[in-house]
Formats: sequence, C-alpha cells, structure tokens
Amino acid sequence: MLSKSQISFIKSLHQKKYRKENGIFIIEGIKSIEEFIHSNYQVHSIYYLAQYQSLLPALPANIKLFEVNNAELDKISTLQTPQGILALVNIPEPPLFKPATPKNLFSLVLDGVQDPGNMGTIIRTADWFGFKNIICSNNCVEVYNPKTVQATMGSLSRVNIFYEDLPGILTNVKLPVFGAVLDGKSIYKTDWGNEGLVILGNEGQGITPPVMKLITHPVTIPRIGGAESLNVAISAAILCADISRNLNK
Amino acid sequence: MLSKSQISFIKSLHQKKYRKENGIFIIEGIKSIEEFIHSNYQVHSIYYLAQYQSLLPALPANIKLFEVNNAELDKISTLQTPQGILALVNIPEPPLFKPATPKNLFSLVLDGVQDPGNMGTIIRTADWFGFKNIICSNNCVEVYNPKTVQATMGSLSRVNIFYEDLPGILTNVKLPVFGAVLDGKSIYKTDWGNEGLVILGNEGQGITPPVMKLITHPVTIPRIGGAESLNVAISAAILCADISRNLNK
Repeated sequence: MLSKSQISFIKSLHQKKYRKENGIFIIEGIKSIEEFIHSNYQVHSIYYLAQYQSLLPALPANIKLFEVNNAELDKISTLQTPQGILALVNIPEPPLFKPATPKNLFSLVLDGVQDPGNMGTIIRTADWFGFKNIICSNNCVEVYNPKTVQATMGSLSRVNIFYEDLPGILTNVKLPVFGAVLDGKSIYKTDWGNEGLVILGNEGQGITPPVMKLITHPVTIPRIGGAESLNVAISAAILCADISRNLNK
Repeated sequence: MLSKSQISFIKSLHQKKYRKENGIFIIEGIKSIEEFIHSNYQVHSIYYLAQYQSLLPALPANIKLFEVNNAELDKISTLQTPQGILALVNIPEPPLFKPATPKNLFSLVLDGVQDPGNMGTIIRTADWFGFKNIICSNNCVEVYNPKTVQATMGSLSRVNIFYEDLPGILTNVKLPVFGAVLDGKSIYKTDWGNEGLVILGNEGQGITPPVMKLITHPVTIPRIGGAESLNVAISAAILCADISRNLNK
C-alpha cells in the first residue's frame, strides 16, 4: 500500500523536470531491474505486485521494497501495459568525458538526436556490438526519458552516456572522426581502423555545421532504391555492424 | 469547410476496422502526398490548409480537393502535430504473391512483426536498399496503420507488400531461404548469392516453428557486447546492408 505522496512523487518522475530535480528515474520489468541491480547504477526502491516477489533476485539491504496492487501500479507506471514491477534508480553524477577514454575503442557521437525511441534503440544496438560509450550533444533527448529507457531493453545499464559540447570534444580528440553524411565515402570501401568516433545527426537536420567541420572521415551508406534517407537508429546500426565486421575479422 | 459526416468518415479511418471496410487509408505531409501521386496508388482526396495550395503538384482531375481550417485538420489528422496537408488513398487490391516474382532479387519476409513503427522503418529501409517486395505473415501489423505509414516516410509508395500464409509460400519457393536466428552462421561469413528470401521474426518470440523449419540458411549478427537481442528493424537493416554490400561489390 502506497501513500498518496509516494504515488504523486513517482508520477512526478514521468516528467523530465522532476527526474532532474530529484536525480531519480524509473525502470520497468523484472529483466531490466535485474540488469540494473547488477550494474554500477544504484537502485533506490522497487514496487511489485505480490506475484513478482518470488522473482526478485538477492537484493542489497539498502533497496526499499513496496508491494503494490494493480490500481497503484497503473498510477505509477509509465507504460500502457505495466509489467508487474517497477523500480526507481538514482541518476549517476555525469562523469566528464575524457578524450583519452575511448583510445582503442569506437564510440558513437549523437548530434541532436530527438526521438526517445531512436535514442533507446541506439543504446541497445551499441551494447550488442560492444560499444561502451555514447557521447551526446547537450540538446539530445534525455536518456532517462521512460520511452528511451524502455527501448534500451536494459542496455542503458551497460553503456556509458555522456552529454557534452561536441565541438569542444571533437577539437581536442586525437582520433579519426567518422561522420554519417549523404555524400561521403561508401562504408563498404571505408578503412575503419581500430579506433574512432562515429557521428550521427538529428532526425531531420542531420549533423550541425560546427560538428560537420570537424569530421575527418565522411562516410555514406550507399543507396540503391528510392528512400530519401534512413532512420538515425538504422544508420547507427549499419555503421556499428560494419565496424564490428572489420574489428572482428 | 468540411461537413460533419466528412470529418467523422475521415476520423473513422484512424481505425483498422474502417480502413478495411472502406478500402481507404490516410497519409500526411506534402512530401508523402507527392510520392503517392507519382506511384501506382490511387489518391482519393486531399485536405489542405490554404497556405499549402501553392505547394500541390499537378493533380489528376479525379482527385477531390478540400481546403480546411486548423480546427478541421486537428480533428481529421492522426498526428499530434498535423503537417498542414492530408490525403486519403485507396488500398490496392492485394496482389497474390507469385513465387516466380522475386527471382534474381532479395525479398524480406516478416513473421509476426507487431509494432507499427518497426514495420514502417523496415519498409523505409528496404526501399533505401532497393528491396522491392516484403512478404508479411497474415498476423503482422497492418501496413496502413497511421504510425506505420508515417514511419515509412513515403517509401510505402514504392515497396510491394504482400500478406500471405508463410509456410505455404516458403514450401513452394525455389530460392535460398535465409532466416535471422540467434545461433546461425555469422552474416560476415555468409555467401548471400544473388537471390533469396530473408526472414525476420516477431519482436518477442522470433520466428515461429513452422517457418523456422523451412529456413535453408540460418544466419546471425555476431554479438560482441551485453544486449540480449536486437530490435527487429535494426536486424533487418543490418542484413539488408550486408546483402547490398555483396550485390554491389
């Protein structure tokens, strides 16, 4: 049984303003909760229907547990069809991006990605291919948006997300800077090497001019048919797969 | 100015039942409308804000035109932010899939894809890579769903969509049948050849057992990191890109 103030607190976290104010976001579903418990994130509290209690993994003592009924879960959930269990997770202190960090690695760089679903799908895909870091421009959608969290399918717990001033980062980095553009070199003919940054732009506008100037290797996914563009998460995935092919051959 | 019955008719097309009953679906945005006008689809009528009239291309005389105001457009639009212009398009008679059709081509086969956004993104991606045909199981989401139409970004006008009994089709087809599974041959080591069908399964359940049995070439996108699976539209895109690389080398 939750108090009115608990319910209204959790509901407030559906909004970005209150997530930021309280430093807490919501995750849903038993699988996601297990993955966050076994990650560097700190789970704050868990809210579950009675039948989910037996599914809970061993928990650190500092996580608060609340059994809830269906009506309560409907109120606090961000989903149309709640998944029986929900947790609050502390937003970590944003670590500052160190240009040295991604040495011998590829990292994705997102310049103004706006759609929460695209952001979540990019995080999930990066995780599949073992990309550990995603550097977002400050105007990208917030990764703790419930739709983003849901689309990551738990991968948010394994990928480091940084929000940065991109031109500042790109000017100082000593790595190849690949960027997905419409008139670059075919990805099929690109020598990716062993490390680099890979920039993808906003859904409608693409990469901003100040960032575009700092691309050292413009690349393109060759078009055969009629579509004018690809979805940004699709482009990211095709580049990740091609880089992964090259790294693991 | 629209009559009440016109508004209620167009609003009814937001629902699958009435799209099917009337054989009509909705498209939105000037770019999409231009692409459908220049396709084999038959545009039925166009509803536009005054300032969009000058943007309209030359139109066949049989397309009915209606100037609307913002309040009317808000009512008939399927979007939270209407794009100033909307059209009704006739749903074509579903052409029967002929196993001979895809010779010397690759076609995508979707087994139970449920999410409208995924379906639309797959159609857009297939169009980019020049895949002309997508064969859907009968339980796939309807492609005339407004969210699907929007996610195709006009590509629906260029890709043929068939709804079929998949085991029936696959049993009779004389082509390699590739299928995206978790324990197949690495796509990076797959010899795609010059033609074939490429099967992708449902978001949660994957490919159904009767379809799985008919796969001649199980393939897998190698995983390096921690994610348990890839989104189905992401998987489709990576396979399309790899096939395209092979066809156009």
